[in-house]
Amino acid sequence: MNFDASVGIVETKIAKFDKIQLENGPEISPLEVAYETYGELSKEKDNAILICHALSGDAHAAGFHKNEKRPGWWDAYIGPGKAFDTNRYFVIGTNVLGGCRGTTGPTSINVKTGKPYGASFPFVSIMDMVNAQYMLVKSFGIEKLFCVAGGSMGGMQAVQWTVSYPDFVKNCISIATTSEHSAQQIAFNEVSRQAIIADPNWNNGEYGETPPKKGLALARMIGHVTYLSDEVMREKFGRKPPKGNIKTTDFAVGSYLIYQGESFVDRFDANSYIYVTKALDHFSLGRGKELSKNLSVVKASFLVIAYSSDWLYPSYQSREIARSLEANALPVTFCEIKYSKGHDSFLLPNTEQAHLIHHFLEFARKRGGGE
Amino acid sequence: MNFDASVGIVETKIAKFDKIQLENGPEISPLEVAYETYGELSKEKDNAILICHALSGDAHAAGFHKNEKRPGWWDAYIGPGKAFDTNRYFVIGTNVLGGCRGTTGPTSINVKTGKPYGASFPFVSIMDMVNAQYMLVKSFGIEKLFCVAGGSMGGMQAVQWTVSYPDFVKNCISIATTSEHSAQQIAFNEVSRQAIIADPNWNNGEYGETPPKKGLALARMIGHVTYLSDEVMREKFGRKPPKGNIKTTDFAVGSYLIYQGESFVDRFDANSYIYVTKALDHFSLGRGKELSKNLSVVKASFLVIAYSSDWLYPSYQSREIARSLEANALPVTFCEIKYSKGHDSFLLPNTEQAHLIHHFLEFARKRGGGE
Repeated sequence: MNFDASVGIVETKIAKFDKIQLENGPEISPLEVAYETYGELSKEKDNAILICHALSGDAHAAGFHKNEKRPGWWDAYIGPGKAFDTNRYFVIGTNVLGGCRGTTGPTSINVKTGKPYGASFPFVSIMDMVNAQYMLVKSFGIEKLFCVAGGSMGGMQAVQWTVSYPDFVKNCISIATTSEHSAQQIAFNEVSRQAIIADPNWNNGEYGETPPKKGLALARMIGHVTYLSDEVMREKFGRKPPKGNIKTTDFAVGSYLIYQGESFVDRFDANSYIYVTKALDHFSLGRGKELSKNLSVVKASFLVIAYSSDWLYPSYQSREIARSLEANALPVTFCEIKYSKGHDSFLLPNTEQAHLIHHFLEFARKRGGGE
Repeated sequence: MNFDASVGIVETKIAKFDKIQLENGPEISPLEVAYETYGELSKEKDNAILICHALSGDAHAAGFHKNEKRPGWWDAYIGPGKAFDTNRYFVIGTNVLGGCRGTTGPTSINVKTGKPYGASFPFVSIMDMVNAQYMLVKSFGIEKLFCVAGGSMGGMQAVQWTVSYPDFVKNCISIATTSEHSAQQIAFNEVSRQAIIADPNWNNGEYGETPPKKGLALARMIGHVTYLSDEVMREKFGRKPPKGNIKTTDFAVGSYLIYQGESFVDRFDANSYIYVTKALDHFSLGRGKELSKNLSVVKASFLVIAYSSDWLYPSYQSREIARSLEANALPVTFCEIKYSKGHDSFLLPNTEQAHLIHHFLEFARKRGGGE
């Protein structure tokens, strides 16, 4: 698999809609959805793949923004000849509702007040995020997605797609995700939210030009520890002394986490962090019989991937999704990849993941070619 | 095993010493060491067991303080007929150097300035803690400990005792501990320290009457998540709604963590938290060959216990201590107890742990009776 080929220079665009009706009642109006596309939509509009991002991701999934050296967050998997082969597929990246990277969220201006929503933004769910994506996808004239794919929170969206729009999704790839957060997963998000709330600059979400940088940095640090495995931390940092930040930490892992926290606050909004983690925590397709029942409407074929070293989204959670799909007689391939990098594994270039995705899509295309 | 028998009403006492010379140079003068004792010291002074506490513990290991309903932190294991049988042994609980529960630490008055040390308190190591305990134990006229025991940070102290004072310790019980912190273990402490430092009230450690309560509460919340297992959190909280704190959290696990954080700040000092977690992170007897070499001076017999669900101090770390002792031809019993409660398991009433400790001590007493 070629991890280097690139879709080249891309830019994030904004699709505008009159409004979106939220699952829990309120409307948001207008709605803007940030997106990028890679590859060409076929004449039959049957080759579209929607990519859903995780907590801190955005619409920029592949290629390079002008004058930037760092490619999109899943560039290793999206491009000509790659797992999501842009020579063949029309790939769509998009930022989630409630986010802060172009799509309407707490930092957007509320047209009724002329000010940013801030903490007055309504609660949004994973289903609401999917509904906003549905509007975007429909705006291309697409009537059926060839595939929806994502890891972590992106995996939740992917599975929710197959439940909310069973006739709209042919194939689904869910990676390193869960049908609902456990108490432990909620706990890590909860402590992160409390870190933001404890920052005096948070000011009940009305922080204007003085955001709660320290609180958000702490939230990011907590998150980062959970994204890595014991093993990869040992390899990367061990007990080495700090690189910089020598006054505030004695260890390399400390200076790394401080750097991750400090650089995060420049690209992410604290209120968005609260809204999006709440969407994660409230997402629930249930477990056991309830999950099987909730998945009974699904028609898609599935590839479900988990990582052996992922202790934040342990593989038993992905396995349960796979089993519940099987219980509904749906075609599902489940694979636990042995890889030491923890939850972040799905974001890293990994030949096994690339091959699994590539072959799943090839098989799906050949099988479903006549549709 | 009887978990209900009690040593009755006890009180914490203070032993005073002229000074202590720290491993890294500075002296602390005077030194006060908080302690409690349970049972009677034998005429031969050969029945003393020293109990070492974990991060947030103190000298109050067993029995009840007057007018308090909550017993000491290891009351399930210390008392008449219990694992550490006070009908037979003279059991000593003591607060660590650098702590905030009676022993000299950052909250103590620096006699040179007439003010609390605060952040001017010198760095203290696990070895320094052990040296302060040595002075306390010697003050009873004891020339040899029958046993030293502890879990987590207490386990580090117990092992350090056998290295620092090989002729002074006959038996050692180390539980749920490690020969050195991994990067992941450092990372959790690091984020906790950063939470304290980020609180504006911390004020470089000079907070006087306005301590960084929010920062310390956050540190405690982070810690608490790591002390529990995925499984026990599922049992205790699942995805239930909050009990109280309904404005600041949506889930039971959130209200529990907030409560734990808020109640912790009334009994613990933020600077102490920084000093003691740094002592944890800097403690290193090495791993592999280095660990075997460092343990080559040891003469004690060992009971090493780990818990299957403890992901903060995973059992491979205790197993490595046991193997390195075996490599030095020392008598060692290693046991991984299957129990779902996570790192906190060692603090909870557990028949298997009680029996292991009881039988280890009985065997040691019968074997070494003639000494």
